[in-house]
Amino acid sequence: MPAPYAGLLERYHDWLDLPAYTRPVTLLEGNTPLIPMPRLAEELGGGFELYVKYEGLNPSGSFKDRGMTAAISEALGRGVRAVICASTGNTAASAAAYAARAGLRAIVLIPQGKVALGKLAGALAYGAEVIQIEGSFDDALALVVEISQKYPIALVNSLNPYRLEGQKTAAFEICDTLGSAPDWLCLPVGNAGNITAYWMGFRQYHVRRGSGLPRLLGVQAAGAAPLVLGHPVEKPETVATAIRIGRPARGEQALAAAEESGGRIIAVSDDEILTMQRRLAAHGVWVEPASAAGLAGLAHEIAAGRFNPRGQRIVAICTGHGLKDPDIVARWSTPPRTLPASLQALTDALLREAA
Amino acid sequence: MPAPYAGLLERYHDWLDLPAYTRPVTLLEGNTPLIPMPRLAEELGGGFELYVKYEGLNPSGSFKDRGMTAAISEALGRGVRAVICASTGNTAASAAAYAARAGLRAIVLIPQGKVALGKLAGALAYGAEVIQIEGSFDDALALVVEISQKYPIALVNSLNPYRLEGQKTAAFEICDTLGSAPDWLCLPVGNAGNITAYWMGFRQYHVRRGSGLPRLLGVQAAGAAPLVLGHPVEKPETVATAIRIGRPARGEQALAAAEESGGRIIAVSDDEILTMQRRLAAHGVWVEPASAAGLAGLAHEIAAGRFNPRGQRIVAICTGHGLKDPDIVARWSTPPRTLPASLQALTDALLREAA
Repeated sequence: MPAPYAGLLERYHDWLDLPAYTRPVTLLEGNTPLIPMPRLAEELGGGFELYVKYEGLNPSGSFKDRGMTAAISEALGRGVRAVICASTGNTAASAAAYAARAGLRAIVLIPQGKVALGKLAGALAYGAEVIQIEGSFDDALALVVEISQKYPIALVNSLNPYRLEGQKTAAFEICDTLGSAPDWLCLPVGNAGNITAYWMGFRQYHVRRGSGLPRLLGVQAAGAAPLVLGHPVEKPETVATAIRIGRPARGEQALAAAEESGGRIIAVSDDEILTMQRRLAAHGVWVEPASAAGLAGLAHEIAAGRFNPRGQRIVAICTGHGLKDPDIVARWSTPPRTLPASLQALTDALLREAA
Repeated sequence: MPAPYAGLLERYHDWLDLPAYTRPVTLLEGNTPLIPMPRLAEELGGGFELYVKYEGLNPSGSFKDRGMTAAISEALGRGVRAVICASTGNTAASAAAYAARAGLRAIVLIPQGKVALGKLAGALAYGAEVIQIEGSFDDALALVVEISQKYPIALVNSLNPYRLEGQKTAAFEICDTLGSAPDWLCLPVGNAGNITAYWMGFRQYHVRRGSGLPRLLGVQAAGAAPLVLGHPVEKPETVATAIRIGRPARGEQALAAAEESGGRIIAVSDDEILTMQRRLAAHGVWVEPASAAGLAGLAHEIAAGRFNPRGQRIVAICTGHGLKDPDIVARWSTPPRTLPASLQALTDALLREAA
């Protein structure tokens, strides 16, 4: 019998560039499903293979746990007693969860307002000290960088290089599941750490295992698309809070990764994002809005005639669970009705609709 | 290389009693982490092994997906076009997700009021027709049973026997991970389908594989404890909405399972449940309130001197993710503060606390 799954640092130990003093802190993150989506592929034109990597099934509900197991493990091994990050929500919850697991103090700075309820609840639940900053995400990020340089508090934002080490494991898992890299990888791009990490991971696996390289389709929200526009966005606006970022920390690397791969970074509207969120849920996969951006971008490019999916194997990364942002569902779902507790009332209502 | 994980019906095909016409519908549910909790074990007195089976990492966020993959697969194979259930929330989301995946119509009846936000959002997101009934859970359940007897609509409540077939796979996974059954299994008891299914699963594995049998500690909320009181509870009340059930569908089987196993069913207060929820989250595992009941019961029994954990291997089932009920966190967490975006303000605030 194979040994029980013991988390990413154990599973991909030989592939991760972490200091020897690292003390593994794991919640058994990773090992997420790669769900075949044949009916959705048909709806998008057909003739290709489509999979969703459902990263919302990580312990704190998003892909951030992959990087956080690495970052917190390094921080614990280094002997710090506190970690800090700025976050629009997913990073906060993840940092809080892993700090709790490690017995470390967690401090998370969030920009005031507009952080989705489910995400903030997570950071609070895991016991982090959550501080709203009267400013933007970028203001919060500048503050945590500064304080971590002056005090022995580990910065666990995506500027932390160990985050990328952990995040690249998702590329390994995809190759392990499919037997090789896909032809295309579609994913949302906000702070741009994730696309950078995937590209690192695919290249590393390819060098040692000849697993091939995907082309990258990075997708930003139109109101927060600095990498498409070519300049920072001072007041980023999008319903996809997880990628509402105007100055991506890894922007240059993301652009380089997309270009090296033979892919590109594009933008889609909030409407396209919400439409794809609804569509994915109608196939049984409920994700937060940002997570639908990758597939929304794919649909956008196919519809515009700029992407021929035929014969391709395509993986879309869905970075966070729909439960992270339950309120948004009210924008596009049919609200519940209320009926008396009688068979007649129920039958009438149901048969009328079926007719 | 082993074949990619393809869901519970494929993985445990030979162990499940499902009709030949079953057409597998999967979202790659199951395969959830069994997280070692050594520090929490120490806090509870030490000297024993403690694990949490984190069922919140199923696709729709709760253990219900295990049973639903079986029930919906059977319904699809049987040729029905619609499924129906009554639910306090988790069943609704799960039924809606798997019906969506299968392309079936999903109708979910919920009792009016008191259903946690995150759960209702799920059913709506997955496209179910959600109907609030002016009555209790038991009224809703009676209605769906009646309508499914008169019309070709598959009942996917836990009265559906295939649900239990799917749910018992969690016992198989625990045995597969640990190499044998644990000494004790602690879990919440509401409608009592889950404890019944675990006992079925452990017995089945033991017969064929000699994996041993656990003793069962089933835990109800004090305000919804019909199996402890020995009679139905007309108006069940508890903060743990997922187990707020006054007339459990599988009550007799649950009592028999606990007795056969040499275990018992007890009740704990809402305070004990919320305290354990907070405690678990402080160790990095955020669950919904009901999910903390099993461990709250264990802590209760240890504190009362009725349970000697020493040398035991104990598994606690955490049935749903904390994201299912984010609002409840406000009851026990420290709310965020707001600070100006200045290093001085931040440093002052953080150092003052550390001092």
